[in-house]
Amino acid sequence: MTLTLTDEKVQQLQDLAHKLRIHSIQSTNASNSGHPTSCSSIAEIMSVLFFHTMRYSIQSPRDAASDRFILSKGHAAPILYAAWAEAGLFPAGDLLNLRKFDSDLEGHPTPRLNFVDVATGSLGQGLSVACGMAYMGKYVDQSAYRVYCVIGDGESAEGSIWEAVNFASHYKLDNLCAIFDVNRLGQSDPTMLQHQVDVYGARLCAFGFNLVLVDGHDVRALCEALEKAAATKDRPTAIIAKTFKGKYFLELEDKEGWHGKALGEEADRVIEHVRSLMKDPQAKATVRQPEGSVPPVSLENVKLSSPPSYSPGEKVATRLAYGTALRKLVEGNNRVMAFDADTKNSTFSDKTRKSFPRNHVECFIAEQNMVGVAIGAACRDRAVVFASTFATFFTRAYDQIRMGAISQTNANFVGSHCGVSIGEDGPSQMGLEDVAMFRTIPGSTVFYPSDAVSAERAVELAANTPGVCFIRTTRANTPILYCNDASFRVGRACVVRQSDADKALVVAAGVTLGEAIAAHDILKQQHGTQVRIVDPFTVKPLDAATIVSNAAQCANAIVVVEDHYYEGGLGEAVLSAVVGQPFKVKLLAVDAVPRSGKPEQLLKAFKIDASAIVDAVLRIHS
Amino acid sequence: MTLTLTDEKVQQLQDLAHKLRIHSIQSTNASNSGHPTSCSSIAEIMSVLFFHTMRYSIQSPRDAASDRFILSKGHAAPILYAAWAEAGLFPAGDLLNLRKFDSDLEGHPTPRLNFVDVATGSLGQGLSVACGMAYMGKYVDQSAYRVYCVIGDGESAEGSIWEAVNFASHYKLDNLCAIFDVNRLGQSDPTMLQHQVDVYGARLCAFGFNLVLVDGHDVRALCEALEKAAATKDRPTAIIAKTFKGKYFLELEDKEGWHGKALGEEADRVIEHVRSLMKDPQAKATVRQPEGSVPPVSLENVKLSSPPSYSPGEKVATRLAYGTALRKLVEGNNRVMAFDADTKNSTFSDKTRKSFPRNHVECFIAEQNMVGVAIGAACRDRAVVFASTFATFFTRAYDQIRMGAISQTNANFVGSHCGVSIGEDGPSQMGLEDVAMFRTIPGSTVFYPSDAVSAERAVELAANTPGVCFIRTTRANTPILYCNDASFRVGRACVVRQSDADKALVVAAGVTLGEAIAAHDILKQQHGTQVRIVDPFTVKPLDAATIVSNAAQCANAIVVVEDHYYEGGLGEAVLSAVVGQPFKVKLLAVDAVPRSGKPEQLLKAFKIDASAIVDAVLRIHS
Repeated sequence: MTLTLTDEKVQQLQDLAHKLRIHSIQSTNASNSGHPTSCSSIAEIMSVLFFHTMRYSIQSPRDAASDRFILSKGHAAPILYAAWAEAGLFPAGDLLNLRKFDSDLEGHPTPRLNFVDVATGSLGQGLSVACGMAYMGKYVDQSAYRVYCVIGDGESAEGSIWEAVNFASHYKLDNLCAIFDVNRLGQSDPTMLQHQVDVYGARLCAFGFNLVLVDGHDVRALCEALEKAAATKDRPTAIIAKTFKGKYFLELEDKEGWHGKALGEEADRVIEHVRSLMKDPQAKATVRQPEGSVPPVSLENVKLSSPPSYSPGEKVATRLAYGTALRKLVEGNNRVMAFDADTKNSTFSDKTRKSFPRNHVECFIAEQNMVGVAIGAACRDRAVVFASTFATFFTRAYDQIRMGAISQTNANFVGSHCGVSIGEDGPSQMGLEDVAMFRTIPGSTVFYPSDAVSAERAVELAANTPGVCFIRTTRANTPILYCNDASFRVGRACVVRQSDADKALVVAAGVTLGEAIAAHDILKQQHGTQVRIVDPFTVKPLDAATIVSNAAQCANAIVVVEDHYYEGGLGEAVLSAVVGQPFKVKLLAVDAVPRSGKPEQLLKAFKIDASAIVDAVLRIHS
Repeated sequence: MTLTLTDEKVQQLQDLAHKLRIHSIQSTNASNSGHPTSCSSIAEIMSVLFFHTMRYSIQSPRDAASDRFILSKGHAAPILYAAWAEAGLFPAGDLLNLRKFDSDLEGHPTPRLNFVDVATGSLGQGLSVACGMAYMGKYVDQSAYRVYCVIGDGESAEGSIWEAVNFASHYKLDNLCAIFDVNRLGQSDPTMLQHQVDVYGARLCAFGFNLVLVDGHDVRALCEALEKAAATKDRPTAIIAKTFKGKYFLELEDKEGWHGKALGEEADRVIEHVRSLMKDPQAKATVRQPEGSVPPVSLENVKLSSPPSYSPGEKVATRLAYGTALRKLVEGNNRVMAFDADTKNSTFSDKTRKSFPRNHVECFIAEQNMVGVAIGAACRDRAVVFASTFATFFTRAYDQIRMGAISQTNANFVGSHCGVSIGEDGPSQMGLEDVAMFRTIPGSTVFYPSDAVSAERAVELAANTPGVCFIRTTRANTPILYCNDASFRVGRACVVRQSDADKALVVAAGVTLGEAIAAHDILKQQHGTQVRIVDPFTVKPLDAATIVSNAAQCANAIVVVEDHYYEGGLGEAVLSAVVGQPFKVKLLAVDAVPRSGKPEQLLKAFKIDASAIVDAVLRIHS
């Protein structure tokens, strides 16, 4: 449907653009910080999107049937806030609380605001999130909502933008419209391409996008470009908007040295000028309501379709158990979605792909985008998401995961191939910092299951646990430790070996739990020494109470052994948990860059094998 | 100069390609793991590069005047090793030690081998490193050496590749040749573009590369393509080579399901077939010697050109001191190079750019590539490198930094804007996990200077400290604490307040050190309680001896306060350092996603201000 676009409507949108400009100047002046010039370059884009093109609900800003909007260049937050105020969500006077401690109108957008889906402000991330939303809209919700993403020209140097462009094109996301604000100036200098909009165009064309080049300050041209985008099938659209930073800011327009600065004493003069350009200073916004609907979904109480089913004595890799459990979750709830980065035959997410292809998205070798897509897919409670690759390759997406926490995402991440125990592939493939990384994520839950039964339950728990969850899985087959009907809880450790005469508590997980059990047997048989063993199940939150009470029964001695670097891992988590206790603690972990070799050679070389545990126990009281 | 290319030479190169194929099959079969099919697709490329095009020294594989080669698709390591063996560096029989614990022929290349500059194996990173080398060659060394990088088609979905492509084009790196091995198959599935070499070509053209499409198994075509690359001025060249995974491996060629697998029982049959294709099974390699020279450099003992020069009572941000010190280092040694990601007016690396533009490289908003470029520039001891951006944006490049440690890099990273104390910009801009991240890097040194004097010395020390160094700098102006002639050492803490009656030791750095001093004064004046304060200077290595001995003199009580998340930060570093000691320890740190606000409001809200320290000290003995 083509929207009628009278001259009056065009003038109204232009006047509203100027209103947004003025709000941006006033709010940043009130906070004495912020990015008014970066707002001004997108004033017409925002006006057209919010007051002409997009369909959304003021009553319910996260309505699932509404169009989505992602401001990837999050530093232009003031104009996003201004647009919602003009749309009628809250009084424009509130805009003057920008960046204040007691206001949710923060320096960069976060979902503390009910009209923001994800936090932005670390650049280059918005388009991946938009891709996740668009993928859900097109293939899963099969709904009419469209997804709009405004991207700065500076941030388009981020590789993650090109990962997302590649993904959007591959999956023919014609419900996605990426608007590039080519305002020529970065923070400290002009951008690489400055105003070469044709070069941006050529690049996006080559990546398979439908392309519209426009004057980003021409309201009518923008309206028409967005119509073309909506009418284009099988390809996402890029609107390359040539704009000017600080547009209409008198001699500040298109000038270096004005990034991230309130206008201060220049403000009054600039506002007066912008006002003089308006025909109707009282221009009122109108908003289109969402059309169509989305299927109802429930993400509550996602369950394994059948309990774990292993035999005592069996050896099963926890990564395989992840694959099994994920498929079972999908079987029970068709809103469980899996994402992988061309490692699905190693992480075993391919079991879901084989049984439920609709629920598995191949993201190819682009981990940053995979994480962004997963976070986007989870928005507005449309899906429970699991994204998997080798544990160490999540380091590639640390910034996205960090921003995910600020975004209040419930995304789950599953990392296989942890530790030196993967062996021959060598250090580049070994996850040795993944626990440290995920522990730093606020509100995160870090699962480290040690057998297939607990791994399946970890997957089920992760699906129902708010915040970022990480599950660390192991490459090698490890023995079944628990009964199929054992129950597991976040933050509850399991005592797997104990006696009345234990002389030390060994805390271990994954392959090192197997080493700890071997050490237990050696100590008992060869040294007459008993040790207790605790499997923490979750490293965060760590079951401090169980560790403290058991250590107190084990001569106040703790040995922690982990296939991870010392820093930030299980060992330091235990130290934090037992702080203030009169315990002797010995940490065993990896202390240098490993190398290729057989797993058992590496466990021995880095002193995290049974023999090292035996030594540590025998020496801890000496 | 065009090289003569007789039919005999072509046949010799083809025979050598087959020899490399056979070595790859044999070595992976000996280790029963590895990626022979991924080797076979580049056999002709490797043969032509190593035995026809490249100029390098067998006697001195890291000779600074030689051409550089980066195998970005590191899993094809066996054929890299085979090429060097055939070139004569070591006996081909050694190849059968592939992936063994006592061999440096690891699963993926690392600089434990004298012919490898950087570790590869985490995909998509090689081209950034190659860009760093090429930048040095063209602009700093101004030498004739060329840089070749072989990139897999699967990994070209990584955004970091496109960051590097953008950089190479912007800086007209005509001494760089990127060879894309388009073998159609990824690990678990075909790649997105499969054999659409024209699409790869269009993308690289749009990004400003000179382009040559070739049959990657046609020796003559490859030779000619590389000639064209060398003859092209002002643009880097991309050779898009259409290849087949497992080329000449009989029915295994171009087949899914053969990624990362030794051929096992198929090996003999395949080898027999490949041998049958050779004219001279004894074909001998010839290698071109490097031509030209590079300027001599010394990276020893890089020094500040003048000592710190501050006045007592002055307040100076440590980020500004970084900018000052960096410029002083460059003044003293023109091989100090700075890299920034469009934040140079915030990190203050722009002081170097203004005084010494040749020594400052703007990398635009592409942190992964910046880190890779810096690591590449440092290779073969051509430069001392410092790369700077906001501390939290190094999370974007965690994988590159991790690989940097495996690469034995000496690169230095400087992160500004740490902690909630940056205030209004909000959580997306706050570095709250940077210490945890850099602590996990094996062999790293983590500086956290608390005033401008120590910050300048930290920069000087980092320049002379092997391994990855990280310097955490603070946005706000902080008071000068030390005399201009104070000396600092890695791993040596400073006691900044003490008395004979101290009741607790406070460990703090950056803004929290200022809070600790304020708390010290409040405790003394209002509560009659003395506390000692230690500035750790380096968080890794942490001066455990100073902390332990001082805590023992302070009633065995320690309060650690940091503007960082709890996990993996200064607090846990202190816990690790004092393990086994009978100390009461209280950690104060940030425990949730922060928000925008004034710095002092945030320090208070997250209980890391003077008042929180006072409370902690007063309660620690209760």
